[in-house]
Amino acid sequence: MAVVRDVPAPQDVRRSGLERWPRYAAAARGLRNYWYPVMWSRDLGRKPVARGLCGERIVLIRDGGTAYALDNACPHRGVPLSVGLQEFPGTLTCRYHGWTFCLQSGVLKAALTDGPNSPICGKVRVKTYPVAERAGLIWVYVGDEPAPPVEADIPRELLEPGTVVVGRISIQRGNWRYAAENGFDEGHAQMLHRYGAVYTAFRRLPAYRETKVVADPDGYLSRVTQLSAEEAEYPGLGKWPRQRPWQRSGKGHRVSIRLPGFIRVKAAHQAHAYWVWWTPIDERRYRMLQFYSAPVSGFDEVKFRLHYLLYRKPFHHIQFNNQDARMVALTPDSAPERLYRPDASITAWRKLCEQARGAPPPAESLDETLAALAEPLAEEANAASGQR
Amino acid sequence: MAVVRDVPAPQDVRRSGLERWPRYAAAARGLRNYWYPVMWSRDLGRKPVARGLCGERIVLIRDGGTAYALDNACPHRGVPLSVGLQEFPGTLTCRYHGWTFCLQSGVLKAALTDGPNSPICGKVRVKTYPVAERAGLIWVYVGDEPAPPVEADIPRELLEPGTVVVGRISIQRGNWRYAAENGFDEGHAQMLHRYGAVYTAFRRLPAYRETKVVADPDGYLSRVTQLSAEEAEYPGLGKWPRQRPWQRSGKGHRVSIRLPGFIRVKAAHQAHAYWVWWTPIDERRYRMLQFYSAPVSGFDEVKFRLHYLLYRKPFHHIQFNNQDARMVALTPDSAPERLYRPDASITAWRKLCEQARGAPPPAESLDETLAALAEPLAEEANAASGQR
Amino acid sequence: MAVVRDVPAPQDVRRSGLERWPRYAAAARGLRNYWYPVMWSRDLGRKPVARGLCGERIVLIRDGGTAYALDNACPHRGVPLSVGLQEFPGTLTCRYHGWTFCLQSGVLKAALTDGPNSPICGKVRVKTYPVAERAGLIWVYVGDEPAPPVEADIPRELLEPGTVVVGRISIQRGNWRYAAENGFDEGHAQMLHRYGAVYTAFRRLPAYRETKVVADPDGYLSRVTQLSAEEAEYPGLGKWPRQRPWQRSGKGHRVSIRLPGFIRVKAAHQAHAYWVWWTPIDERRYRMLQFYSAPVSGFDEVKFRLHYLLYRKPFHHIQFNNQDARMVALTPDSAPERLYRPDASITAWRKLCEQARGAPPPAESLDETLAALAEPLAEEANAASGQR
Repeated sequence: MAVVRDVPAPQDVRRSGLERWPRYAAAARGLRNYWYPVMWSRDLGRKPVARGLCGERIVLIRDGGTAYALDNACPHRGVPLSVGLQEFPGTLTCRYHGWTFCLQSGVLKAALTDGPNSPICGKVRVKTYPVAERAGLIWVYVGDEPAPPVEADIPRELLEPGTVVVGRISIQRGNWRYAAENGFDEGHAQMLHRYGAVYTAFRRLPAYRETKVVADPDGYLSRVTQLSAEEAEYPGLGKWPRQRPWQRSGKGHRVSIRLPGFIRVKAAHQAHAYWVWWTPIDERRYRMLQFYSAPVSGFDEVKFRLHYLLYRKPFHHIQFNNQDARMVALTPDSAPERLYRPDASITAWRKLCEQARGAPPPAESLDETLAALAEPLAEEANAASGQR
Repeated sequence: MAVVRDVPAPQDVRRSGLERWPRYAAAARGLRNYWYPVMWSRDLGRKPVARGLCGERIVLIRDGGTAYALDNACPHRGVPLSVGLQEFPGTLTCRYHGWTFCLQSGVLKAALTDGPNSPICGKVRVKTYPVAERAGLIWVYVGDEPAPPVEADIPRELLEPGTVVVGRISIQRGNWRYAAENGFDEGHAQMLHRYGAVYTAFRRLPAYRETKVVADPDGYLSRVTQLSAEEAEYPGLGKWPRQRPWQRSGKGHRVSIRLPGFIRVKAAHQAHAYWVWWTPIDERRYRMLQFYSAPVSGFDEVKFRLHYLLYRKPFHHIQFNNQDARMVALTPDSAPERLYRPDASITAWRKLCEQARGAPPPAESLDETLAALAEPLAEEANAASGQR
Repeated sequence: MAVVRDVPAPQDVRRSGLERWPRYAAAARGLRNYWYPVMWSRDLGRKPVARGLCGERIVLIRDGGTAYALDNACPHRGVPLSVGLQEFPGTLTCRYHGWTFCLQSGVLKAALTDGPNSPICGKVRVKTYPVAERAGLIWVYVGDEPAPPVEADIPRELLEPGTVVVGRISIQRGNWRYAAENGFDEGHAQMLHRYGAVYTAFRRLPAYRETKVVADPDGYLSRVTQLSAEEAEYPGLGKWPRQRPWQRSGKGHRVSIRLPGFIRVKAAHQAHAYWVWWTPIDERRYRMLQFYSAPVSGFDEVKFRLHYLLYRKPFHHIQFNNQDARMVALTPDSAPERLYRPDASITAWRKLCEQARGAPPPAESLDETLAALAEPLAEEANAASGQR
């Protein structure tokens, strides 16, 4: 008799709290009409690789230095082209029957096992996806509208010459929206990351912060700390958190989120930035792409890379961020939600998503959105001070 | 290519044979309005633990010596409180955003990451469950009606001072009803346990027994052996079972079942008793809690505990009862059933379940139930003797 | 956090391309009213074994030298009889409560734990299946019409005295139809088996072949090679395949398929033949039974068996055919299909299936089917030569 664990059954994907943001609610598989990073450029060669993106199945391959992306299904019998191989330059051949597709156009150039005069040539076409390579990454566009230039969806900082990008790419369980919300979420860090992570062992996390959400250039929403309380007296409970003399207050950094779902974390006094994309695979899984970027070269680059490999990767990108990924995986989709004051960062993000590309024309501008958002927050704060 | 096993697909949970017992048929997740044992008292401390019970998800924690049980989902985002921790006495704090709930009332006392004046305090409440500790076990009440005293659902023997309770708690696959039916089932022991168990290697199991079901004090139904045949001549087949000279006839014991689903097995001449609860987790899994109890102390207690650890646990509670658990796991829920004469014990139990707490007022008393039950049994027996 | 793989979700079983062959489309679990091989005779003894066949669950057991097959569910509580055991010759006893069934008739002979006068005896019956043993294999008939003699579904060659049959039986993922289609498929071998298999490392596979499908005696459809091109110049691409000087052209063999789904591969100059049955377990799994047969004896038999064990089994039946099984497992069922010229072999097979036993009377004979099939092929060929 195998061991049976006391685990909950799998969850429904629809969350009941999203009615106010219909486009966001519909985007369980991601926002379409955007470029997404999907893998390191250096990992793509002549061997095709499969990638799920916004519920679509894509095969990627490099040929003559250029990356290509096609629908990962041979139209003949549906077998994945990612198990195929390259028999001629500029093409990808299905391993099953030798159907050979032009990488650029997707057109069937030959059905090898039907001879050179196969009548099906030119009559079949697999879908191709726009692909680009920037900042050491492969970017794929998925959508129904014509693709904008890839630079439209890549942060300016990553595109600047001389920028070094290091990072970690992993697959995680859970819906990408809860991962993105976790990333921009004001409240959780003070609690979730307080315990069990080397990365915060010597950092004094505040008890709570008051922040406001502002619109930044380049389409970012940013959280701006208004007040940071190292310690507080909670009525009926006592002081929190326990102070640890060896901890030092962290330096302020600005957390910003942008469509279609990534954050930038940057400190005013530092040249490097921290980035996370939550690229949807399907409703239940996302690819987490975590980066550090910095304009460094020579010995500074060596130091930057070593610091990443020896400290930031194991302690920030793995141990610290796995605390986040665990919470995202544990967030059920069928349960109702009950937001609280710091979730203003989340509702601002959800409102932003209503204005994503391909949307019906937004009823209000982002500034109006933020203004409108500020009011109930103020009201709630008043109610709160009146109450207690 | 991974190995694929020739196993049946998972089964539907509805069994077609239960139409005559509508409440029982509806109780796939257990009978509500009862206290259930869920874990050892000694295993509960300040670290919260998750327990599934009758389809509900519960978090248990001990604080200041007292056990508490709450709905295992933070109302904020639905994350399980069982991954939370205790920041203040008398409370449980969600690990994600620090929502802090009063263990006694379930009321939100603080949203730590929103500061001491968070307006949401006092406005949110998680469900709490009645909990009690008796006989070294944690008991939880799940139901819609007010909870009776816990003693109402605990056997008198286990509550007596000086009683020592030892046992094994495990999670098993299958529906709790088939486990309970297996436990009170007259027929299976003579076949299922005849082979492959050390526990019965030296015990002469009869070929068959004739039993009647009677109502015992304290709400038990008991099987009373009327006739026990060591060997029989089966028409057209021959004698059965094969006699093994080294085996000795077992001493008689009385098997009794009680709502919401546990048995007591007791021999007239012995002080100790054997108990099993089949506490439903959900439709497909149950927690099997197997105990031995005895009024012992001093050196007798040491002997009793050693005898359990070295003999009864490995050979009775594990090897022998795993034979039962395997059959329960193999009982499909979608198949029709065809009962036979010894299943009178099962139908009596099903009738008893129709009178469980929270039920519409029973049309007949338990005595009437048993009397009514006796008639068709008699008829069937007559028909049987006439037939052969 | 457990590792999550980037794998596609499980597929639907209905394929959209099968509308033209309604009986075949409906046969996701196999064609009924046929005999299927399910296991080696030598592997069946007094211990019952479970076998899935065309979606039905069957228990097999040998008694007094004869093989029997019954529905693998005790009518009492549905527990599989395959965990049962034999208490009396000519019967199978359920392990749970000792219900004992006549192997020949399926009738309940005794309910052991209810004593010799159990009134249920003779009133319950489990379904029995026709079973036969030929060529060292157990054959089971599943269907609704009376079973024909087993010889009707076994190749003549395997029935001839002095024939030795060796082989491999395994369970594979995927629908049996795509396995059968792969087996008779003209096109795939030249591509799929070109790389990665020792079996073809020294064999010169042609670039493509032109074949026609003909009706052979005994109900076989056969592919007859009309033209075999070792190399070809593909417009816009170049020559294919790369020639390897150490490879030698293979000798011609005739591939034939027959209802309910097996192939015979035979070379004119050789005495041995190669066989594969794809026996459906259910919609998603099939049992692959691969054989070599030869009329050998004495030292020739030893050589034949050794050659199989040391060469054909590891390199043909395992490594080479696992390439096929992988493609079958990768063929999605929900995707549309787009057939090409060599798939004439597949459509001929599908048409043949429309004439399977138990079908409504076929509108045309097999010869007419093949004649009708030849026309569009000719047209398509004309169109093709006109086009290029």
